[in-house]
Amino acid sequence: MSINTAPPRGMRDFSPAEMSLRTYVTGVILDIYRKFGFVQIETAALDSLEFLNSGQGGDNEKMLFKVLKRGEKLELDKPNRSENDLVDLALRFDLTVPLTRFYANQREKLPLPFKVIQMGNVWRAERPQKGRFRQFVQCDIDVIGQKEIFAEIELILASTQALQALSFDNFTVKINDRRILEGLAKYFGFEEKKESFFITFDKLDKIAVEGVEKELLENGFESGQVGKFTAFLKDFSNKTVAEQLDFLMNLEVESKVVEDLKTVIKTIDQASQGKFSVEFDITLVRGMGYYTGQIFEIKMPEYGSSVAGGGRYDKMVGRWLKKEDVPACGFSIGFERIIQILEEKKFEIPQKMEKIALFFDSKEGFMQAVNQAQQWRLEGKIVNLEQKQKNFTRQLDRLAEHGFESFAIFDLAKPLEIKPLKKA
Amino acid sequence: MSINTAPPRGMRDFSPAEMSLRTYVTGVILDIYRKFGFVQIETAALDSLEFLNSGQGGDNEKMLFKVLKRGEKLELDKPNRSENDLVDLALRFDLTVPLTRFYANQREKLPLPFKVIQMGNVWRAERPQKGRFRQFVQCDIDVIGQKEIFAEIELILASTQALQALSFDNFTVKINDRRILEGLAKYFGFEEKKESFFITFDKLDKIAVEGVEKELLENGFESGQVGKFTAFLKDFSNKTVAEQLDFLMNLEVESKVVEDLKTVIKTIDQASQGKFSVEFDITLVRGMGYYTGQIFEIKMPEYGSSVAGGGRYDKMVGRWLKKEDVPACGFSIGFERIIQILEEKKFEIPQKMEKIALFFDSKEGFMQAVNQAQQWRLEGKIVNLEQKQKNFTRQLDRLAEHGFESFAIFDLAKPLEIKPLKKA
Repeated sequence: MSINTAPPRGMRDFSPAEMSLRTYVTGVILDIYRKFGFVQIETAALDSLEFLNSGQGGDNEKMLFKVLKRGEKLELDKPNRSENDLVDLALRFDLTVPLTRFYANQREKLPLPFKVIQMGNVWRAERPQKGRFRQFVQCDIDVIGQKEIFAEIELILASTQALQALSFDNFTVKINDRRILEGLAKYFGFEEKKESFFITFDKLDKIAVEGVEKELLENGFESGQVGKFTAFLKDFSNKTVAEQLDFLMNLEVESKVVEDLKTVIKTIDQASQGKFSVEFDITLVRGMGYYTGQIFEIKMPEYGSSVAGGGRYDKMVGRWLKKEDVPACGFSIGFERIIQILEEKKFEIPQKMEKIALFFDSKEGFMQAVNQAQQWRLEGKIVNLEQKQKNFTRQLDRLAEHGFESFAIFDLAKPLEIKPLKKA
Repeated sequence: MSINTAPPRGMRDFSPAEMSLRTYVTGVILDIYRKFGFVQIETAALDSLEFLNSGQGGDNEKMLFKVLKRGEKLELDKPNRSENDLVDLALRFDLTVPLTRFYANQREKLPLPFKVIQMGNVWRAERPQKGRFRQFVQCDIDVIGQKEIFAEIELILASTQALQALSFDNFTVKINDRRILEGLAKYFGFEEKKESFFITFDKLDKIAVEGVEKELLENGFESGQVGKFTAFLKDFSNKTVAEQLDFLMNLEVESKVVEDLKTVIKTIDQASQGKFSVEFDITLVRGMGYYTGQIFEIKMPEYGSSVAGGGRYDKMVGRWLKKEDVPACGFSIGFERIIQILEEKKFEIPQKMEKIALFFDSKEGFMQAVNQAQQWRLEGKIVNLEQKQKNFTRQLDRLAEHGFESFAIFDLAKPLEIKPLKKA
């Protein structure tokens, strides 16, 4: 019987080629975020169930990898053990819930506003499918303690700049505000069942106006109101942005909400220098229930789903501090989505360091070649010191395959000559 | 009741200051390893119990964080459930066991020899104590597929160079060979209970010759043999290295083993350029049972325990391939130990990027200041864009505390002036 040495279901190992892309993307994103004054933190991968099951994670809480209690604490013999009697910890399913715990724990030592980067693995016991994994990297920036839209603007600027640094352009930042959605629900008489309305409205992209109409009717919304709403939807998409924003004045929404939306769009548009676009999108809902203000998403025309998303969540951080509100706003780049797109595009990592293979023939040759290799490494080169194999052509081919561009054979009797290494 | 927002027992969250040291150290080590031609991989954090419980991890296998089965697979109602009926995965306790699985799975696509870097978290449910954590980073390089001591030499060169790049010098590389220890056991008649002998001998550092003598006698070793052995130990430490190596010829050890040991010591000594020392240490045992050839450790005089260790393990990788031997050799830098020492030394990270705080007064000022900030960021500066607060002195103090060196106030009416920011 052969042994299955694949990683567990839905998990991945990363090969050297995959890792170098992931490392490159990580480096580019971190560099941009740092230039915006964001600082990186890391929380423990395991957290207590008390936090992870606190109701802030929505459906993600159903997908926890839970960790068995250890030693005496695991009382297996006791009768009627329920699942939660057996476990005490779980792997984090996102980086936002641990961030709120971290902030509550360390806030006195942190700068205010706290502009924070998190990049790390999260785990979800989802049904694996193409592009969906049980362990994946999230890449978040958050601003805690800034109630004004300066936070939103810096988050959008930093995220769009990171995408540009990764060779993306021509994308669209879509912006909306949860309070506008609330106003919309009220305006069309959907307020009493607004959560259900939002869930259906969020599907507009996939099921079109007709699908939304059908689902609202199925869910018991009144047909006259549904008709008014779908007529509005069809009409609204034909309006200019100025007309759209004017319409918002009809909704029972504080004028500051609309003003702020205009300011964000104007500032981002100006900073974009025409390299990407920014637009108000009243149909943007975003899944998580915790958003309280502006919400945003970045879409690329050539790739269906969004590549980044975020928004303001002022009611979440205060929870562990027994405070009503702590202003907070975050933006998350879909790291795995970006990697997938770059791999599909056959993106070539800008090579910074020269890669040389230095061959030696004998043990004596090796001892001498070590010095040559060390010298080249000090000059910033990558040097692979290898014993010359019998099938030298095959050895060279393999090195070329792994990105080596030149080679030299160390021979005490001859001067060292660096030759180019061609890809087979 | 106040909520405990600390991370779980034995786990840590890392603050921005802690993270920047960890990121810096990671970067320095990776840079050196890459220059030696090592390539990075990553395995899944969770692995199946089949691999983690395969007997290669020694006592670490008793410290697994095991993950509860999910959904229908968790048959809680069935009677007499044992612990292992309830779990299917666990968090990895080291990076070597997952590496052997990875290599078996992907070997056909990998370069040969495979020179691999792994840096990542591992988890052990140990009793937490000072400097010992339940989640910690391991930092390993391994060479798979090289049976000659070129592997050993490159591993030691890369590791010592990484330590030097982190400002360490004056350390000692200690080298021994498991086959010499076997020879020693045979020579003094301890062969039948050699595992027990090695465990006691490994404690020499802590319990001295007298302690070793006492423990051997307690464990039933014959007193005449024990006496001969301890006399040898006392005498041996007074010999010169040349005399010590000569003694090895008395042991039933292949001469290649001793020759190889001499070659490694000579090559490393020459490459060290007197910045660190390398020595044969017959008392070096190293805990793990899987070593088959040379073993090594790096010690610093000012810090008791070793900061790096490794060795050859030719019998481990072949296991999943149904092969007898696959040559393999590894070296691991004690990442958490290095961090701890650097923190104790109050090591200052070389600052690469200028950090400026740019203040604005109003929303209009902000929109203009965004452009200035963007320009400075393009020049490679870190720019924190902040609204001027009422208590400006306190705001400046806080920024100085977090490493900002200069500030400027954006005012459309005045030319921009960059002022130094002094640490309070």
